[in-house]
Amino acid sequence: MKLSELVTPALVVERELLDANLTKMAEALPGTRLRPHVKAFKTTELARRMHALGHTGFTCATIREVEGMAAAGLGDDLLLANEVLDCRRLGAIDNARVTVAVDSRVTVDAAAEGGVREVVIDVNVGLPRCGVDASEAGALADYARSRGLTVRGVMGYEGHVMLVEDPDDKRKQVEDCMALLLKASADVGGELVSAGGTGTYHVNTWANEIQAGSYCLMDTTYAHAHAPFQQALTLLATIISANAGGWFVADLGLKALGMDHGNPSIDGASVWYCADEHTVFSADGAEFAVGDRVRVIPAHIDPTVALHAQMHLVDGDEVLETWPVDLRGW
Amino acid sequence: MKLSELVTPALVVERELLDANLTKMAEALPGTRLRPHVKAFKTTELARRMHALGHTGFTCATIREVEGMAAAGLGDDLLLANEVLDCRRLGAIDNARVTVAVDSRVTVDAAAEGGVREVVIDVNVGLPRCGVDASEAGALADYARSRGLTVRGVMGYEGHVMLVEDPDDKRKQVEDCMALLLKASADVGGELVSAGGTGTYHVNTWANEIQAGSYCLMDTTYAHAHAPFQQALTLLATIISANAGGWFVADLGLKALGMDHGNPSIDGASVWYCADEHTVFSADGAEFAVGDRVRVIPAHIDPTVALHAQMHLVDGDEVLETWPVDLRGW
Repeated sequence: MKLSELVTPALVVERELLDANLTKMAEALPGTRLRPHVKAFKTTELARRMHALGHTGFTCATIREVEGMAAAGLGDDLLLANEVLDCRRLGAIDNARVTVAVDSRVTVDAAAEGGVREVVIDVNVGLPRCGVDASEAGALADYARSRGLTVRGVMGYEGHVMLVEDPDDKRKQVEDCMALLLKASADVGGELVSAGGTGTYHVNTWANEIQAGSYCLMDTTYAHAHAPFQQALTLLATIISANAGGWFVADLGLKALGMDHGNPSIDGASVWYCADEHTVFSADGAEFAVGDRVRVIPAHIDPTVALHAQMHLVDGDEVLETWPVDLRGW
Repeated sequence: MKLSELVTPALVVERELLDANLTKMAEALPGTRLRPHVKAFKTTELARRMHALGHTGFTCATIREVEGMAAAGLGDDLLLANEVLDCRRLGAIDNARVTVAVDSRVTVDAAAEGGVREVVIDVNVGLPRCGVDASEAGALADYARSRGLTVRGVMGYEGHVMLVEDPDDKRKQVEDCMALLLKASADVGGELVSAGGTGTYHVNTWANEIQAGSYCLMDTTYAHAHAPFQQALTLLATIISANAGGWFVADLGLKALGMDHGNPSIDGASVWYCADEHTVFSADGAEFAVGDRVRVIPAHIDPTVALHAQMHLVDGDEVLETWPVDLRGW
C-alpha cells in the first residue's frame, strides 16, 4: 500500500527514525536497564520491537495496558507503575508476571485481595502526584509483606524535572529526587529502583531501571529538552478547503490531536486553530492546494496516539505495516 | 449493573437529564427542523433516540460517521457537513441518502467521480474555516450540476457566534451571517438552508434546519452561553492516591479528557493539572478518600467522547444501558 492510499487523518511512523531511536536507547540502556513505558505508544507491535532488542520488562499505566501486553505474549515482567483499586483484573492475568505500584494501605489491601502477588512501593520524589512520602515507605512495605505480598523494591517518577533545560541543573535536581528514592529503597529492601523517563534517562544514574517511553516516537517538547531522538510520528492529513482570504483547512482536529500542549505545527505554515475535525492554517513559505497531503506534527504524542485505532509504519511512500493501537481504553 | 461496578474512567450519561434535553429540543425544533449533529456524541444508540423523536435527518462531520449511521439503519437523510476528497467511500454506501458539502471545484469533482449524487454548497458565513464566498456559490452550484450532481441547497456554520453572550448582539450577528447564506441560497437554488448549532438554535430563524448536536450531552462552555440544556454527561473516576500535602489523584487524565478548553472540574475541589492518566486536585469544600468514586466534568464534551469506546446510560446508581461509541475514527 502507498501512503497516498491511506484514509486521513492517519498516524504515520517513519521506520528509519523509529529504528534509530530504538537502537540509540538500546545502546544507552541495554536489556532490563530500560523498562519501556507502553503508555507512550499503546501498541504491542511496537513493544515487540523493543522486546526483540532485549528490553523484556515493560512499564504500564493502566490495567488495560497490562492485560493487552500479557495477551500479546509480552508479559515477562510487567510493572503497573500506577495505583489501582480494581486489582481483581490484575490477579486474573495468569500468563504474565505482574507487579503493581502501591502508595497507601488501601492500595496494598486492594492488591492483596485482588490476587496480585508482587508490588513496588511508589515514592513521591517531588512531583505532586502519586507516591508515599519517603519516610513512610519502609512501614508501607512492612504492611504489604504482612498482607502476604512480595515487595520488589521502589519506584518514583521525577516528572517535574523532565523538561529542565540546563544539563547541570537537571542532574542536580534528579540527584535530589533520587536521594529520596534511595533512602526509601534502603528502608523497603528489594532489588528494584525504578524511575526516570525520556527527559532524564541519560542523567539518572541512581535508578537501576528507567521507565522511558516517549523516546521511540518522540515529542516536540522533549526534543526541545535536547534528547537525542527524532520525531518519528506525524499525522498525515488532507487539505480539504482553501480560501482566497489566505487560509487552508486540513482534515484533522481536536479528535485526532492531543491538545494539552497546544496547537500542532505544519512545516511552512502557521497554524491558526483547531476545531473538532479541522486544523486551519496559513501558508508561511510552503505552497498548498486542496487535495494535497500534508504532515502535521502533534504537540503531544501520548494523548494523540490514544485517539487513533491504528498507526502505519512507513518507508518513504511505502506503507510497510499497519499496527493496531491495541492498548487503548481502561 | 451498578455504577460502582463500572471500570473507571467511564463516560456516564444521566438518563433523566438526557431525556429532558432531547425533549426540550424536539419541542423547540420538531422533526426535520433539527438535523442533529452526530459529531457531538458519536453514538448511534443516542442518535436512535433522536430519530424516535422525529429527527430523521442527521448531520455528520466525517465519512466514518456517515458509514456508521447508514450501517445502523439511520440513513434516511445524512448530510456530511464537511468537505472530503475520498468520496468513493460515500458513493459505496447503498442503504442511505447521502449528501456532501462542497466548497471548491476539486471537492465537486471528487463527489461526482466518487459516485455521490447529491451535494450542498458550503458557504462561508464569517467563520474562517470551510465554505465558498457567498458571491461564488451560484457559480459553484452550476458547476456541480454540470458534473451531474443534484444541488440540494446551501449550508453555512456561524461557529464564531455560538458563544456570544448578549442575546441581542447574538441575534444581530446571526442575522448578518444568515444574510450571506440567504443571498447564496437565492443564487444556488434547492430547498435546504442548513446552519446553526446549540449556541444559536433559538435565534437562527433564517435557516430552515439547524445542525445542533451538543445540546443532548451539553458542555460547560455552552452552558455559560445560556442554552437551556443541562450537562448530562460526566466522567466517573476513582481516587487512587491521597497525599498529606493536601492533594488527591483521580484515575483519568489527558487520554480520557478533551483538553482544548482546559482542565476538567470536580465539585468541591480545585483541579491542579492533568497528566496522561491522572487528574490532581485539592479538596475545596468536599471530602475525599482513596477508593472514592468522583464525578469529573470535562471542559469540552466532543473530543472527550472521542476518547472512549462506550458510554453508560444511568439512573441514580443503576446502569441502564451501555452504548458503544461506534462512530469514532475516520
